[in-house]
Amino acid sequence: MADSPRSIDLTRVAEWNEGKLERKSDCLAAEEPLEIRIGTSPISVTMRTPGNDPELAAGFLLTEGLVRQREEIIKLELNEQGHRTNRGNVVHVELRPSCAARVEKMGRNFAATSSCGICGKASIDLVRSRTLHPPNPKFRVNPEVLIALPDALRSSQAVFERTGGLHAAALVDACGKALVVREDIGRHNAVDKVIGWALLEDRIPLAESLLFVSGRGGFEIVQKAIMAGVPVVASVSAPSSLAVRLARELRLTLVGFLRGRRFLIYAGEERVGTTRA
Amino acid sequence: MADSPRSIDLTRVAEWNEGKLERKSDCLAAEEPLEIRIGTSPISVTMRTPGNDPELAAGFLLTEGLVRQREEIIKLELNEQGHRTNRGNVVHVELRPSCAARVEKMGRNFAATSSCGICGKASIDLVRSRTLHPPNPKFRVNPEVLIALPDALRSSQAVFERTGGLHAAALVDACGKALVVREDIGRHNAVDKVIGWALLEDRIPLAESLLFVSGRGGFEIVQKAIMAGVPVVASVSAPSSLAVRLARELRLTLVGFLRGRRFLIYAGEERVGTTRA
Repeated sequence: MADSPRSIDLTRVAEWNEGKLERKSDCLAAEEPLEIRIGTSPISVTMRTPGNDPELAAGFLLTEGLVRQREEIIKLELNEQGHRTNRGNVVHVELRPSCAARVEKMGRNFAATSSCGICGKASIDLVRSRTLHPPNPKFRVNPEVLIALPDALRSSQAVFERTGGLHAAALVDACGKALVVREDIGRHNAVDKVIGWALLEDRIPLAESLLFVSGRGGFEIVQKAIMAGVPVVASVSAPSSLAVRLARELRLTLVGFLRGRRFLIYAGEERVGTTRA
Repeated sequence: MADSPRSIDLTRVAEWNEGKLERKSDCLAAEEPLEIRIGTSPISVTMRTPGNDPELAAGFLLTEGLVRQREEIIKLELNEQGHRTNRGNVVHVELRPSCAARVEKMGRNFAATSSCGICGKASIDLVRSRTLHPPNPKFRVNPEVLIALPDALRSSQAVFERTGGLHAAALVDACGKALVVREDIGRHNAVDKVIGWALLEDRIPLAESLLFVSGRGGFEIVQKAIMAGVPVVASVSAPSSLAVRLARELRLTLVGFLRGRRFLIYAGEERVGTTRA
């Protein structure tokens, strides 16, 4: 994977082991704030692991419904020179005028959410209203491809190997080939990075890909997959109740607890080529 | 732990195991949005696991620097009746007039952050400027207390046992006795719940307690501990670079990779009673 020199920090630690204390070096996953700025307006600050930041911004713009296709992004630039204390931590964005109404709506979004109800159903309805690409009903994935994912991902997690501190996300094709793998201290950032990569590569909707995440599959992860037109989400851990409801209502396939030669299918079973018991 | 009837959802899943497909029931960690509203203004919406919501709101108010002591909270009420689609998902808050300037400042916060720089140093300075309780320099914890924490926490994680899908946070005294344990789909919410419990019990600053979290110790977790005056944070996994910097600069003890009879001390070694190698 694209491993930025800023993704890892080296530090001194003390290891306590059975009463003995030993000083040693340790690698840490880097964490720094990233601001996404449209024109002069900051629209988001997130704690992330530096690296692939324009992809992170692009993925955020798509999954938040601000941008629908690559052509709407005129500029996407990390301030690698710029003001000293901001250097490397601000992505400057310019969008086509077609996006202005969506950006403005995002500013009013909070009030809008409140007025239409704070509940799981309202959250699902909001995702439904923003979706452009219904999950491809014809996409199929073989169980053998699914069970091979955890090992395949582990071998491409460069930073995780050295720090034990990162989430990973991957886009994988129907044959199990990884198109892109990204790591981040925040699971949602890792997902935004792979989706942002796809947007910048003009691969949206990702109708023939599955999204694999190293941790659990919560509402936010399924939401991002839906916004990118990904038909299958798989994770090594448990999904939440609302993630399962969202996947079922919007007809996405959701697989969890992918461990060894076993997994659970929470939604969209028809896309998994299985032998019935 | 206080286990709300809304914390767990039951669902039907298909288990794929070595080519055989079996239908069964599965427990899911519940996830629903929670809005925190001061007067008529929504100030936060977070996806959380229902249960102990007034504590979650109280912890959020304290760790965001809006409230400094229990007496400043006049009302803290989950809307258990109310409008149908919001029911159980909005906490109504009323604060003393002394908090008004802080709440107003929070609204302007975003712009403020940008103008003082987007970087780790600015993030640390912001926490420093909000802190009221420097971490107790006299608090000590025995390594044997630390290594016993993971097993002790596991046995009180009611929802995790059944869903595999939750983070846990606990406040523990110097003898290893758990004062409170809370679980949530979001690690930061679990921490807000235990700190909110302490605020409502009038136990802030938590100068004689340690905070134990089931996952990793990122910047946000250390920040919350500092706001509550907790001198020691321990986790079973890796901290981030910025969490370590924050702990070192504000003189908090940070312990990670608490596994078996071994752990790493990233900051504030003087609080861990050790035998030198």
